Amino acid sequence: MKALVYGGPGKKSWTEVPDPVIESPTDVIVRLDTTTICGTDLHILKGDVPAVTSGRILGHEGVGHITKVGSSVTSLKVGDRVLISCIKSCGSCPNCKMGLYSHCLGSEGASGIGWVFGHLINGTQAEMVRVPYAENSLYKLPDSVSDAEAVMLSDIFPTGFEIGVQYGGVKPGDVVAVIGAGPVGLAAIATAGLYGAAKIIAIDLDSNRLEKSREFGATDVVLSGESDWKKKVFALTDGAGVDVAIEAVGVPDTFTMATEIVRPGGHVANVGVHGKEVPLHVENLWIQNIFISMGLVNTNTTPMLLKLVESKKLPAEKMATHRFNFDQFMDAYDTFSRAAETKALKVLISR
Amino acid sequence: MKALVYGGPGKKSWTEVPDPVIESPTDVIVRLDTTTICGTDLHILKGDVPAVTSGRILGHEGVGHITKVGSSVTSLKVGDRVLISCIKSCGSCPNCKMGLYSHCLGSEGASGIGWVFGHLINGTQAEMVRVPYAENSLYKLPDSVSDAEAVMLSDIFPTGFEIGVQYGGVKPGDVVAVIGAGPVGLAAIATAGLYGAAKIIAIDLDSNRLEKSREFGATDVVLSGESDWKKKVFALTDGAGVDVAIEAVGVPDTFTMATEIVRPGGHVANVGVHGKEVPLHVENLWIQNIFISMGLVNTNTTPMLLKLVESKKLPAEKMATHRFNFDQFMDAYDTFSRAAETKALKVLISR
Amino acid sequence: MKALVYGGPGKKSWTEVPDPVIESPTDVIVRLDTTTICGTDLHILKGDVPAVTSGRILGHEGVGHITKVGSSVTSLKVGDRVLISCIKSCGSCPNCKMGLYSHCLGSEGASGIGWVFGHLINGTQAEMVRVPYAENSLYKLPDSVSDAEAVMLSDIFPTGFEIGVQYGGVKPGDVVAVIGAGPVGLAAIATAGLYGAAKIIAIDLDSNRLEKSREFGATDVVLSGESDWKKKVFALTDGAGVDVAIEAVGVPDTFTMATEIVRPGGHVANVGVHGKEVPLHVENLWIQNIFISMGLVNTNTTPMLLKLVESKKLPAEKMATHRFNFDQFMDAYDTFSRAAETKALKVLISR
Amino acid sequence: MKALVYGGPGKKSWTEVPDPVIESPTDVIVRLDTTTICGTDLHILKGDVPAVTSGRILGHEGVGHITKVGSSVTSLKVGDRVLISCIKSCGSCPNCKMGLYSHCLGSEGASGIGWVFGHLINGTQAEMVRVPYAENSLYKLPDSVSDAEAVMLSDIFPTGFEIGVQYGGVKPGDVVAVIGAGPVGLAAIATAGLYGAAKIIAIDLDSNRLEKSREFGATDVVLSGESDWKKKVFALTDGAGVDVAIEAVGVPDTFTMATEIVRPGGHVANVGVHGKEVPLHVENLWIQNIFISMGLVNTNTTPMLLKLVESKKLPAEKMATHRFNFDQFMDAYDTFSRAAETKALKVLISR
Repeated sequence: MKALVYGGPGKKSWTEVPDPVIESPTDVIVRLDTTTICGTDLHILKGDVPAVTSGRILGHEGVGHITKVGSSVTSLKVGDRVLISCIKSCGSCPNCKMGLYSHCLGSEGASGIGWVFGHLINGTQAEMVRVPYAENSLYKLPDSVSDAEAVMLSDIFPTGFEIGVQYGGVKPGDVVAVIGAGPVGLAAIATAGLYGAAKIIAIDLDSNRLEKSREFGATDVVLSGESDWKKKVFALTDGAGVDVAIEAVGVPDTFTMATEIVRPGGHVANVGVHGKEVPLHVENLWIQNIFISMGLVNTNTTPMLLKLVESKKLPAEKMATHRFNFDQFMDAYDTFSRAAETKALKVLISR
Repeated sequence: MKALVYGGPGKKSWTEVPDPVIESPTDVIVRLDTTTICGTDLHILKGDVPAVTSGRILGHEGVGHITKVGSSVTSLKVGDRVLISCIKSCGSCPNCKMGLYSHCLGSEGASGIGWVFGHLINGTQAEMVRVPYAENSLYKLPDSVSDAEAVMLSDIFPTGFEIGVQYGGVKPGDVVAVIGAGPVGLAAIATAGLYGAAKIIAIDLDSNRLEKSREFGATDVVLSGESDWKKKVFALTDGAGVDVAIEAVGVPDTFTMATEIVRPGGHVANVGVHGKEVPLHVENLWIQNIFISMGLVNTNTTPMLLKLVESKKLPAEKMATHRFNFDQFMDAYDTFSRAAETKALKVLISR
Repeated sequence: MKALVYGGPGKKSWTEVPDPVIESPTDVIVRLDTTTICGTDLHILKGDVPAVTSGRILGHEGVGHITKVGSSVTSLKVGDRVLISCIKSCGSCPNCKMGLYSHCLGSEGASGIGWVFGHLINGTQAEMVRVPYAENSLYKLPDSVSDAEAVMLSDIFPTGFEIGVQYGGVKPGDVVAVIGAGPVGLAAIATAGLYGAAKIIAIDLDSNRLEKSREFGATDVVLSGESDWKKKVFALTDGAGVDVAIEAVGVPDTFTMATEIVRPGGHVANVGVHGKEVPLHVENLWIQNIFISMGLVNTNTTPMLLKLVESKKLPAEKMATHRFNFDQFMDAYDTFSRAAETKALKVLISR
Repeated sequence: MKALVYGGPGKKSWTEVPDPVIESPTDVIVRLDTTTICGTDLHILKGDVPAVTSGRILGHEGVGHITKVGSSVTSLKVGDRVLISCIKSCGSCPNCKMGLYSHCLGSEGASGIGWVFGHLINGTQAEMVRVPYAENSLYKLPDSVSDAEAVMLSDIFPTGFEIGVQYGGVKPGDVVAVIGAGPVGLAAIATAGLYGAAKIIAIDLDSNRLEKSREFGATDVVLSGESDWKKKVFALTDGAGVDVAIEAVGVPDTFTMATEIVRPGGHVANVGVHGKEVPLHVENLWIQNIFISMGLVNTNTTPMLLKLVESKKLPAEKMATHRFNFDQFMDAYDTFSRAAETKALKVLISR
């Protein structure tokens, strides 16, 4: 088969590789119909994630059909159309039992659980992929849900909802600010209404993305490059500060911005992936009664989000801005890597 | 009357001052029977809290009898024996309605709500004190609750319980670590069982305090000065890390310690009062699915804690290690300021 | 002034009565701009609520302007445009402190707290009304909220949301069934989305009301008169039963219907006002892991709902189907009492 | 092997039967060390549970060692000492994913999930038992936990805690009443403190059981046969009613008692197994803002309760009042069936 293979920092190719095979009784082989590219893949390509070694097939999102099932798999069968979740988990360890799939402890002797696709094992930017612990990682898709909708549930929507909206404790009537209107930030914006947010303020440096954010449910937008951005946010909250500030960028400045606009009693939900420490101003914040959360998506809300997509209550498909075929994979990367210019949110690559 | 008056950095005296008077219809005057000293008072005396100006009567904890009531006070009367809460709040603003008394917005035009005693208005280290918004700040005491028990509910116990145990989300079966076994840390230790903690690990540099912590409910103790302290904590949790790490000191090192021993999915509850920023290692923590909280006590659990003291379910009285009369106030400060040496937890000063 | 006065079973008149006066320092007098009629008023007129005696002014919903304030009222002033909440509460007793305004214990010696308007004291179907504990019962209205929107927040919307949606524990992705598509049922339908319901099934005997329910957010409708209604509900839930069944009628049959369509682990939220006991089939239900709730509205979500109306996130105004002037009050009652025929939901009576 | 075999209504024998064998790859065979008898077994013997047919081995509680494991079992091995949970569940269906093991949907085509031991399949009152879905139903036991302690976690303690205390929403400071001080009621009494109950009132007709209840944590006791029992309960709550009323008997009268002593805003948690409908007085209760719950134990708190037993925080062993050998099984039944006379709580039958 062909796959997108990492060749060390700065190098990648869409090239011929051996087909995946069943390695464990709980494995399944999926033939991909649609996959996509994540910002994390760009980080890997820069060489920022040393655990990813040369020869690795990238990608952790996808939709496809099952072509083979391991001997102990009973709830899935060849031919099923499935969503591939970005997180692998055994479903039975103490962490999985409490829904903390991101920190699956696996069975004795197992390793590489949690986010492993395109990281510690071969990923989904390929014609086929081996899915470990398949019964806890694949979700059968109803016909009424398109590939474009479904692939947004591999990572983007569960991440924005679980780590942004749920960890942030959004509740009816809240004012929610989302700093960073990229795909995950937009997913947070689109799902904040699931807990009844009254106002959803998108904050970004890019006015194009702010405009886009309105389509996903932002009620107000603030351009963060302007010197009075903070004043504008407070004006939208009668001077009180926001109930929930969701950080969806991953740099120190945006983290600090979130702590500066949250009201006493409010929440800061960090969704961004950070590369360095941030100074936490506890000398001011200790008395503010605030809650700060952060984490990797568990994907335990995936079935619920799938129901909402089926009910047409989530604008998942709007996230797909560009479409390519598998043999245009290099073009897809080019378009996605120049997102500011191409206005790409998520690029779909399909069979 | 006599009172403990701040005279600028390093200066204090037990001296004659005018009696307090009713200033607003919601005020009450309380004649103190017992008061105590808080670590915050020592900070003020060092000059660390510039808002406190020379001439201010210190103290925010106390028990006494009502001698006068304002014209709109209906639920309290002269002669009532009451607990004075450290937090003043109007009870009717939006923040008060949600139980966030620490961030009371007050009535229009009001100021200085929240922690004001011995800070922005005269405090409780005096023979008498004026209590604003009295109906929302005083609690009638049953005869069966002693002064020594009650005064621990002015600040220490609600702080340890609300900001440590409740904000930390302690639940049945949890392993809870409390870093810092001073009065507030011990209050957290004593109340962690209210949500069914299975193990409560006290961590401190002082082996005397660790020994004391067992009387308050610590099931395990770890001396933090030893190089393998962290290894010992992990050994007590089968290598997983603690469910809840409560920081009850207020310096960067102990905050960082808390983030290093918490398990994925766990909580860090900061109770300490901090004077400078701490580095938050989000480059490691972002993927750990942790929750960090901090705040000033709301005292909205005071009536509940009072019921538990009445039921003899909280060891409040054990906190009182030394007792003085009002005319020994300077000695009380001396004993409390040399706590490591005198083994003082809370010193009581009574009529 | 003129008012709608109850004259004993079957008798009412729009007639001249004395103006209300301030009786307590916490009272306020409101001059009504708009009021409405509730199903409860019809019950009272039948003589079903013996506590209501001849001479009582009916009504517990309304919007108006303040004309007088009691001496201890500080946060409201003459001229303020306000929403009148159907529940009176002191705001400071233990029940009020926990948000249980419906069971306000009042001050010592006080009585008649909770639902009192048009019941134990004179109500809002009048040109003016005395509002006790005004600071905890009146909400200042922004100009952007119309009378028609605001008056739906006196009772209908908080009741549907608090007792239906919140007590029912609706959560994102849930299938919610609402039995009875009258005003309160429609309010539950309209607010179920605040906690992210995926499907909202309206169930009623009246196909006109079912059609109307779609405007308020029902995704599916089931005519309960048909013999296979239950089969249809299960078909909408893949045979599992609904997550939350909200009873909004108040008779034994509809209560039993709710317990028959709820899935294991689900909730039955009773909103209806009942006049007789219902048989609870615990011989079947004990093993079903279900939760049943019931209660009088607390109105503690009124400020939040008001924010949502202001954000145009709730279709409050759609509830107003007919409009009258004060001097047409008897016509308004006539229209409302023949709701099946007139298709009335809420009738507005305005100055 | 020998086993306790049901022979139709009124008939049972400790008799020779074939050894169990592995039937599915997820099965495990356990050699029992200790088992016990449940009130449900007595109901079955009376013929009250028609699903149990002649020839069935009874019992759903037990502790033992693993002697054989199915081919897909990886986390358990021959020789492991294990606790057998009374509920069988697949661990991967939607209900199991939300912790609702009692309503496990099983794999496609599977049946008899939930409570099946000694009901739909052979049970634990035997020298050996086949355990389906073993990895989700067996818990490895630490050496420090005795058989007598462990077997109380098969059913009694999880039932009292989950269906009584957790479903009842017990919180710190609550007054909890438990109606019925049998084994499950005592388990609720013993675990109410895990959520900080301030007062725990045991209510029973048997003064001996009331006395016993104090050993498990009851702070007050009320003899329900006396005409003023209700007055006594209200006196213990300052006239307010209890926060949580736990019904642990299973007849209409005790259910009604629970609804009569609960305060507005409180919870009724039904733990009893009922055989007939009860009249629910919604004509009075609709306005009381109460919550009623009921259900079959999920056993998802078993690992947590095991940790608490290990920490010596639960008096599990006190439940064992009588001990027998396997060849005295008929005597054990005799003693247990005359509990009022023999003062039996739980009888242990061991190898």
